[in-house]
Amino acid sequence: MAAKRIQLSKTGPEFSRVAAGVWKWDNLNTQQIDTLVKAGIESGITTFDHADIYGSYTCEEAFGKVLRQDSSLRDKIELVSKCGIKLLSPNRPDHKVHSYDTSKSHIVSSVENSLKMLETEYLDLLLIHRPDPLMHPDEIAEAFYQLQKSGKVLHFGVSNFTPSQFEMLNSRFTLVTNQVEISALHRDTIFDGTLDQCIQHSIVPMAWSPLGSGQIFTETDDPTVRRLRDKVIEIATNHNNAGIDQILLAWLMKHPSQILPILGTSKPERIKAAADAIDIDLSRDEWFEILVAAQGHPIP
Amino acid sequence: MAAKRIQLSKTGPEFSRVAAGVWKWDNLNTQQIDTLVKAGIESGITTFDHADIYGSYTCEEAFGKVLRQDSSLRDKIELVSKCGIKLLSPNRPDHKVHSYDTSKSHIVSSVENSLKMLETEYLDLLLIHRPDPLMHPDEIAEAFYQLQKSGKVLHFGVSNFTPSQFEMLNSRFTLVTNQVEISALHRDTIFDGTLDQCIQHSIVPMAWSPLGSGQIFTETDDPTVRRLRDKVIEIATNHNNAGIDQILLAWLMKHPSQILPILGTSKPERIKAAADAIDIDLSRDEWFEILVAAQGHPIP
Amino acid sequence: MAAKRIQLSKTGPEFSRVAAGVWKWDNLNTQQIDTLVKAGIESGITTFDHADIYGSYTCEEAFGKVLRQDSSLRDKIELVSKCGIKLLSPNRPDHKVHSYDTSKSHIVSSVENSLKMLETEYLDLLLIHRPDPLMHPDEIAEAFYQLQKSGKVLHFGVSNFTPSQFEMLNSRFTLVTNQVEISALHRDTIFDGTLDQCIQHSIVPMAWSPLGSGQIFTETDDPTVRRLRDKVIEIATNHNNAGIDQILLAWLMKHPSQILPILGTSKPERIKAAADAIDIDLSRDEWFEILVAAQGHPIP
Repeated sequence: MAAKRIQLSKTGPEFSRVAAGVWKWDNLNTQQIDTLVKAGIESGITTFDHADIYGSYTCEEAFGKVLRQDSSLRDKIELVSKCGIKLLSPNRPDHKVHSYDTSKSHIVSSVENSLKMLETEYLDLLLIHRPDPLMHPDEIAEAFYQLQKSGKVLHFGVSNFTPSQFEMLNSRFTLVTNQVEISALHRDTIFDGTLDQCIQHSIVPMAWSPLGSGQIFTETDDPTVRRLRDKVIEIATNHNNAGIDQILLAWLMKHPSQILPILGTSKPERIKAAADAIDIDLSRDEWFEILVAAQGHPIP
Repeated sequence: MAAKRIQLSKTGPEFSRVAAGVWKWDNLNTQQIDTLVKAGIESGITTFDHADIYGSYTCEEAFGKVLRQDSSLRDKIELVSKCGIKLLSPNRPDHKVHSYDTSKSHIVSSVENSLKMLETEYLDLLLIHRPDPLMHPDEIAEAFYQLQKSGKVLHFGVSNFTPSQFEMLNSRFTLVTNQVEISALHRDTIFDGTLDQCIQHSIVPMAWSPLGSGQIFTETDDPTVRRLRDKVIEIATNHNNAGIDQILLAWLMKHPSQILPILGTSKPERIKAAADAIDIDLSRDEWFEILVAAQGHPIP
Repeated sequence: MAAKRIQLSKTGPEFSRVAAGVWKWDNLNTQQIDTLVKAGIESGITTFDHADIYGSYTCEEAFGKVLRQDSSLRDKIELVSKCGIKLLSPNRPDHKVHSYDTSKSHIVSSVENSLKMLETEYLDLLLIHRPDPLMHPDEIAEAFYQLQKSGKVLHFGVSNFTPSQFEMLNSRFTLVTNQVEISALHRDTIFDGTLDQCIQHSIVPMAWSPLGSGQIFTETDDPTVRRLRDKVIEIATNHNNAGIDQILLAWLMKHPSQILPILGTSKPERIKAAADAIDIDLSRDEWFEILVAAQGHPIP
């Protein structure tokens, strides 16, 4: 049995081996969210990945109602949120331009609002959502120190950062993760140095969109997706006819950087299936067969 | 009021917030250059950016005549020059091939010639003009040490270096700047790690061609330039109808790496206008609006 | 006279300035290989570059027969081999998928087999043949330590690694080289940071395919190869009508990273010619003329 929990870095938080993203939970009611949270906890998926902007600034609040309903839940889960994007939204009438803001004051006030919406006293992890060309690492580090000192955020990381952006901020404040897009269909970070950097610094990356495309579940005309889908289904026969999603999650988790996938589902059964994927141990041959099917050409 | 002076790095020189490039002064006579130098000094623009090769090896000499005429000028200005390119030129009949030379002997003799032409005893800053594939950092470092020890050059940097080239030379000799092309129309260095590296090392980059294209001042057919121009003119209305060049300079100076723009103008009034641009404080929204207009697609 | 030997790094092995690759020796008999090895030794080319997979897993064994025949040879040469690629081959019926394997057990057993095939008790240098997306630097380092401790391999390096992959593994175990493709026709590593990294770490890179293409020796229609070939022949007239291969090897060896070329020939006379190329000292002008002919556009 593979470990169900993972520590993001030497000084980082312990998370569940797979996280549940709330990105697509924006149309769910409190009861439905409650069901998903409890399905996660039961399956050992206790880490929930938020951002201030999800659901056009509504998802944190909807999730917070579940925590308010049952105050025993907070101790059983870990909460991740993000800040730094200013979205045009009816819920933020003061935003005039879709832009980024990584000023100290914006980071601090964004977190304070997330805490209020989520009905919690602390975040386990805060991420800068996108690399802001105007970010200054000293200013971000100041915001992080203040939030850490006040107990409002326990750990800090980034999302969608290139290696040089990560290095720049990490030189001022020790980051515990870089949350990036990784899947068999989006392999850039495997080869462009992003995951090399994580391994070198002994930091676990988090993967958003870990299945790459919803098309993977359907009879699609896209030749790349179809080729990958066929190969995954073939390999699944070696693994007790596991689901396509399970094989693709296992493919990510086999990477030596110990990629932590963030599920994009809002179905309790898929959360449970993902939890079971932790125990699927692909062989090296299977891993490379999936890589080659996805990229459409052999390795050198 | 924003600071009119800036220190390039912890141990680097103090320069004016904007520098005057002499690149295009090759057709000016001594009187005209004198006027430009004095216009600069009056406006607080005291840093003059040379290279041995400007004007096909003539600009340093023309500038030197102004310094000879009025020996009080040298103490009021900072002189930057560059070496390492061997240009085909009637003024260098021994050059048979357009090539680079970063040998110790070439660097030292090039500087000695620059000092003679400029009629000065020292350069404030010497840059390797282009990354030479044959450069050896130990040999360059030896040349820099010798020039520094003899008082002929106070500080050293590079121009047009990639992050790995900068890192290689900086591992042998502490550099104070990387002078690269940066403008709203040429944004590569903002995203490719060049400016991240400057921020990480607390080094101020210098920007050549900071307006990107002379077309920005005219009714152009180029859709990119036109889109940027329209946006800049719109934003200028929030800033006392500042000039297009002023807004574009302010856009560069807002970057957290504290980009030091090098003017390409030979008009005294534009030098004065640039000095006033230092006080224009663009909002984050305005900065992103200019970015998006220049790149032609929204930020993610 | 240029040095005939070179140390790969501060703690690395001393190799001949040019190495002989056995990649294309797969159709040679024992006598022919014996002739080549002795031609190398006579010319001072004593380093032989192997890989487990060369000749579909046959070249090491064929070379080993020569060493068995004459046990005095081993002390006169240095042996490089590689591991990590699993090729489909009648000689490896258990390989089902063309894949990579950098697990500790595969590295160790691959080396043990190489030693047996080569009829030697140690390798001077072992390289990971290709960057394996599933490699874990800690596991590779463990394998290296074990092989070093047992005396089976004296030094360790990599092949075809990007700078970030090199950095990742080098952070766990000190590498003495990165063997990559470099030639006038394949110049990526000169500009993408690979060679910058070698210089920064004072590590000698090894170059495979140093002539870039066999076409360089023939009247070809390829305009790039033809342009380069014409220029090389022209420059050869300044160097006692040296061969095309000699000028191209001298071009590589002039690079400040001290590139060590690996010959791809199986002709004794070309091995001798390559040894003589060590003494060809191209001027900077000649180096840049070859660069410009190869790239087809002037330097900036």
